[in-house]
Amino acid sequence: MDTIGVGLIGTGYMGKCHALAWNGVRAVFGDGPKVMLRHLAEANPDLAAQRAAEFGFEHATADWRDLLADPEVAVISITTPNAFHAEMAIAALEAGKHVWCEKPMAVVLEDAERMAAVAAASGRVAVLGYNYIQNPVVRHIEGLVKDGIIGRVNHVRLEMDEDFMADPEAPFYWKSERSSGYGALDDFGVHPLSLLQTLLGPVEAVMAQLAKPHEQRPVTGGGQRPVETWDIASVLLRLHGGVSGVMALNRSAWGRKGRIALQIFGDKGTIAYDQERMNEFQLFVAEGRPSEQGFRTVLAGPQHAPYDRFIPAPGHGLGFNDLKLIECHEVLRAIGGEAARVIDFGHGLLIERAVHAMARSHDEGRWVEL
Amino acid sequence: MDTIGVGLIGTGYMGKCHALAWNGVRAVFGDGPKVMLRHLAEANPDLAAQRAAEFGFEHATADWRDLLADPEVAVISITTPNAFHAEMAIAALEAGKHVWCEKPMAVVLEDAERMAAVAAASGRVAVLGYNYIQNPVVRHIEGLVKDGIIGRVNHVRLEMDEDFMADPEAPFYWKSERSSGYGALDDFGVHPLSLLQTLLGPVEAVMAQLAKPHEQRPVTGGGQRPVETWDIASVLLRLHGGVSGVMALNRSAWGRKGRIALQIFGDKGTIAYDQERMNEFQLFVAEGRPSEQGFRTVLAGPQHAPYDRFIPAPGHGLGFNDLKLIECHEVLRAIGGEAARVIDFGHGLLIERAVHAMARSHDEGRWVEL
Amino acid sequence: MDTIGVGLIGTGYMGKCHALAWNGVRAVFGDGPKVMLRHLAEANPDLAAQRAAEFGFEHATADWRDLLADPEVAVISITTPNAFHAEMAIAALEAGKHVWCEKPMAVVLEDAERMAAVAAASGRVAVLGYNYIQNPVVRHIEGLVKDGIIGRVNHVRLEMDEDFMADPEAPFYWKSERSSGYGALDDFGVHPLSLLQTLLGPVEAVMAQLAKPHEQRPVTGGGQRPVETWDIASVLLRLHGGVSGVMALNRSAWGRKGRIALQIFGDKGTIAYDQERMNEFQLFVAEGRPSEQGFRTVLAGPQHAPYDRFIPAPGHGLGFNDLKLIECHEVLRAIGGEAARVIDFGHGLLIERAVHAMARSHDEGRWVEL
Amino acid sequence: MDTIGVGLIGTGYMGKCHALAWNGVRAVFGDGPKVMLRHLAEANPDLAAQRAAEFGFEHATADWRDLLADPEVAVISITTPNAFHAEMAIAALEAGKHVWCEKPMAVVLEDAERMAAVAAASGRVAVLGYNYIQNPVVRHIEGLVKDGIIGRVNHVRLEMDEDFMADPEAPFYWKSERSSGYGALDDFGVHPLSLLQTLLGPVEAVMAQLAKPHEQRPVTGGGQRPVETWDIASVLLRLHGGVSGVMALNRSAWGRKGRIALQIFGDKGTIAYDQERMNEFQLFVAEGRPSEQGFRTVLAGPQHAPYDRFIPAPGHGLGFNDLKLIECHEVLRAIGGEAARVIDFGHGLLIERAVHAMARSHDEGRWVEL
Repeated sequence: MDTIGVGLIGTGYMGKCHALAWNGVRAVFGDGPKVMLRHLAEANPDLAAQRAAEFGFEHATADWRDLLADPEVAVISITTPNAFHAEMAIAALEAGKHVWCEKPMAVVLEDAERMAAVAAASGRVAVLGYNYIQNPVVRHIEGLVKDGIIGRVNHVRLEMDEDFMADPEAPFYWKSERSSGYGALDDFGVHPLSLLQTLLGPVEAVMAQLAKPHEQRPVTGGGQRPVETWDIASVLLRLHGGVSGVMALNRSAWGRKGRIALQIFGDKGTIAYDQERMNEFQLFVAEGRPSEQGFRTVLAGPQHAPYDRFIPAPGHGLGFNDLKLIECHEVLRAIGGEAARVIDFGHGLLIERAVHAMARSHDEGRWVEL
Repeated sequence: MDTIGVGLIGTGYMGKCHALAWNGVRAVFGDGPKVMLRHLAEANPDLAAQRAAEFGFEHATADWRDLLADPEVAVISITTPNAFHAEMAIAALEAGKHVWCEKPMAVVLEDAERMAAVAAASGRVAVLGYNYIQNPVVRHIEGLVKDGIIGRVNHVRLEMDEDFMADPEAPFYWKSERSSGYGALDDFGVHPLSLLQTLLGPVEAVMAQLAKPHEQRPVTGGGQRPVETWDIASVLLRLHGGVSGVMALNRSAWGRKGRIALQIFGDKGTIAYDQERMNEFQLFVAEGRPSEQGFRTVLAGPQHAPYDRFIPAPGHGLGFNDLKLIECHEVLRAIGGEAARVIDFGHGLLIERAVHAMARSHDEGRWVEL
Repeated sequence: MDTIGVGLIGTGYMGKCHALAWNGVRAVFGDGPKVMLRHLAEANPDLAAQRAAEFGFEHATADWRDLLADPEVAVISITTPNAFHAEMAIAALEAGKHVWCEKPMAVVLEDAERMAAVAAASGRVAVLGYNYIQNPVVRHIEGLVKDGIIGRVNHVRLEMDEDFMADPEAPFYWKSERSSGYGALDDFGVHPLSLLQTLLGPVEAVMAQLAKPHEQRPVTGGGQRPVETWDIASVLLRLHGGVSGVMALNRSAWGRKGRIALQIFGDKGTIAYDQERMNEFQLFVAEGRPSEQGFRTVLAGPQHAPYDRFIPAPGHGLGFNDLKLIECHEVLRAIGGEAARVIDFGHGLLIERAVHAMARSHDEGRWVEL
Repeated sequence: MDTIGVGLIGTGYMGKCHALAWNGVRAVFGDGPKVMLRHLAEANPDLAAQRAAEFGFEHATADWRDLLADPEVAVISITTPNAFHAEMAIAALEAGKHVWCEKPMAVVLEDAERMAAVAAASGRVAVLGYNYIQNPVVRHIEGLVKDGIIGRVNHVRLEMDEDFMADPEAPFYWKSERSSGYGALDDFGVHPLSLLQTLLGPVEAVMAQLAKPHEQRPVTGGGQRPVETWDIASVLLRLHGGVSGVMALNRSAWGRKGRIALQIFGDKGTIAYDQERMNEFQLFVAEGRPSEQGFRTVLAGPQHAPYDRFIPAPGHGLGFNDLKLIECHEVLRAIGGEAARVIDFGHGLLIERAVHAMARSHDEGRWVEL
């Protein structure tokens, strides 16, 4: 495979992020096929043309199905709102395209189940955009855990907090509608779950409490409307091997902007990480004299692959967009038949099931097994 | 009340801490009665005499009941192991003494109930040693919450972590015996609960998961013995006014030494605090330009009463023992008939009930109301 | 200007960094000319061909002068070792090309002077690669300083520390040869000076102490060789308007990886920044109640232009390579005739003069005016 | 020596601090003589009586010379303004008393020289109140440095910053008068110098720049008065063994409250410390895999003597006043004939000479040898 033709559906936040990844992946990694930016789809035709020019795509269309029909397109990035993922991903796979689809898979579990089934049957690569697991720091943490540097893991804590729903005066919009999903759980709870599953394996049982910090919100034009989603979720977890855990999510957490805080406790040490300082992690290992023991702040560097592909010097820092670029490289490796470090539709389905089990647990006030 | 005679039972960790507080309280605060260190009880008579000399007490005894009979003793510090609290506190109150007793109240709930009942009937001051609430920083946080600086509180997270049970090779000792209590829950979970109750009021419902990081421990002399207590506890909380919360406790958390981390989320801001850095707190208020918003690290200073009684300059820092001294001053204020900021036996009982409810919730796998 | 042809000389650390910037700049900013990656020069012809393929350049050559002769090349990135900058930049400017040259300008001051003179005469854009000033956080700090948010600035402190020369057992190599320059002063002292000049204007007088942490180093093959450069530099500064300052540089600072720490003191507040945590800064403003004053940790976000061109969400973080991409955009803006935020050869010369003045001050043990 | 009689002159900030230390020292350390709080002097006789009652002293006087005449007084704490130190300390020593005097020694160097001479001739203990060196964390750092844990030290940086002179609108008062001293240099520069001398030995040469952030200040009642002292000082240092250093002082540093930041660089590692977080230090040691190297945050604990005398549990934290109590214990040890860890008048004189050398260096614009 000397070249690969790329299609992109959607040109918003994640669409641009994919475009940047496709633009830079070969220059960063210096391997894999030459990337041909072939076809971009965006509902608004003028915007499609503009973005194609900016992002470097040859063709632009307002009809995403044109990408399926384009024989030069081998892989399609799907970055549209969640409600469209299932239809597009399934159609793309059935058209013989590889798929790189943003998370979460779908709003309802049945769609996610179908996506996974079609992907399994297709023989194509079907990867989800869980980019936080691609951070060299997170990859390194994974290695430390697997090498037993902190011993046998016995407990884990996860937090994910942002504040885009924190202002009680902000008007009601679709994120507060039940049709958009449960709220914090699926809106971003899937991110810490992707870390959890990658680092420690799937969740076995959950017990959740969902909460509404704001019971109602002002409606533009006047009046108030009851909020239908839960901006806060608190979850007890039971993982494989008797590991206990807690996950706390809050999308109305004033002052938190991109916090994904992780604490992994083992019988020889502890690891802590916070996405808001994504170029470092904390490591405590119970060795040496107690008088000099302490959490080490380890700065990202070329020892933490594939940081070295971006910068040869330590402590200089990657950015959020670089994580998507690493993910892009993994997608290409998967397409090339290599064992890639990704969350594919099959593994993504486990995350979706965990989310829905949490919601059921909240409704029924009891533990739900997975 | 010009002078007050003090009795002290127990001379270990907390016994010394009380002795230091009684020694320094008048010099720090410059008010209240002159403190007469009258009578010290310690099971070992030689040690009793030695500690009395060191701590400045006039009389020493191996029989704590001697303090009840001493008419010069008006208040008794009880700092013995938890199992003795009920008998001693009740006897002291019934002898007409004021009582300042270390936490928790008792190992079994019935004892705590009796202590509270006797205290209520006695007309004496009966205070528990929940010193973390005395930190000027915590007091100030309480004021900020009550003044609405972060708006209406809607969510809270608490963590308490130390690592004295983290080493799986450490031999079995009494802290792993069921007779000592549940483990993390009562051993130190009561501390974050004291903060919670002080800052946000009592807990209304709990859902807990207890866990054992080490299933068994080596016995001195050979062999292994199953661990009977839970070193880890994870709890979902429901508080008054629909506030949701999470509390996570771990006394096997490698690297954590005295962590009591608190996050309080309101609809106008967020407060965070960590006891390991007890001379500062974090405050985010959603005001001003977003481009300069951020968590402020506020250093303790004379504006945070009663820091000024210790040091006139900001940022110089109090220590753990100073918190007990502030508590001592509150005990004296209560004895003097003033409204004191303490957790008395009545309020302490609410904490004990919450702990036992958590244990029941774990056993039964369901929410327990309080 | 619809398209612009780019030449690149050198494909090492900075060469790749420029290549990534040229690849991504249009997709990120969505404006400016279409970038045509035209011609890449690298001394080793095989490597030249390989890198051209990876980075997406049309032509590769082992002779950098081929770029001068290529009429399609409008701008040339010079990323070769410092000793080559003068010859290449001057030749490129004289061939009518715009130049984007890595820092520092040259090893000897005379070369830098010539470069600035030729650039001034050429009418072409001649920009130096001082990328740290492009950090949205640094740009925002500049705005805060200029808007008087911290009042009149009266003092500044700068530190730059890495540890690549820290190991005394590491063998002697060219960085310890006097012909490479003074050591820490020009090797990376120019970076904090670029920040200083951008934020507070040029330095007026300097008083320096240079130091050698290791007097000699092992020579590969046996024996020891005296170290000829100074890995540590400490400098007193006098800036315009009576502002005093200190700059401390250490390239043998164990544990520091990319530290560029800045503290700016004004009569209404203080700003602090550390490049190792490049997505945040600290701001103290003396306003409001003292009881809640404190340094705010402000996380980078879309309010800090041009962060928003990379990511719409706050707190997600840019990386080191993104700074070079922003710089690339400024180069394009300068070429397009816009007022760009860059350090051109004229302003770069002021930095070089400061460095040489510091070395002279050390030699003569006295203040040197600029 | 079974008991020791204590005199105290002055009852302000430091007077109270000494009183608290004398009150608690025996209870904390459990050794040494019984402390008899004998005689307190305070210019205002009513205040003297009040403070004596609060602090527990038997006698109060408005005439400090009464303490010299009291045969029961063996040691005198001198905590009056700096201008009185010389007269009082010399008189006390000549009366055969031991002296524990607050820093700095005196406003003019000649007084300090006389104090040291009298002390040397007296055969009495004469100790200065440099309490920051008593922090268990600082003591431990000293041990690490001396044991070579960070190898041969080659560079040091010190900062001391507070903000009590930061407000340009604050009225002129005695701290801006030249008669009070130089300003930041002697007002608190002596503190970092005490750390420096304890950890790394005396300073050999200095090169200073003094600066005035505010040229004039409002006078109460109207008008402006020129400021005569320097609130900012920046100093290049040369220490024994070729160690280079920088010291930066700022008493107009908005937001800093008690910052004394220390960075010690060695050829095997680095140590960092900040008094604002006095219960922790940072240690980097170049050992093990680079991928897990990082600065460790070591929390104070019972391994760091004499922390264990205050609290048996790690991470619970000492306070500023506890440092003075440790110093008090060292004074008692010195009086008892033991080798104590103090800065006596002889060693204090070296600090004073360094301060005056810095001022001369500033005046003359050149290095001054010591």
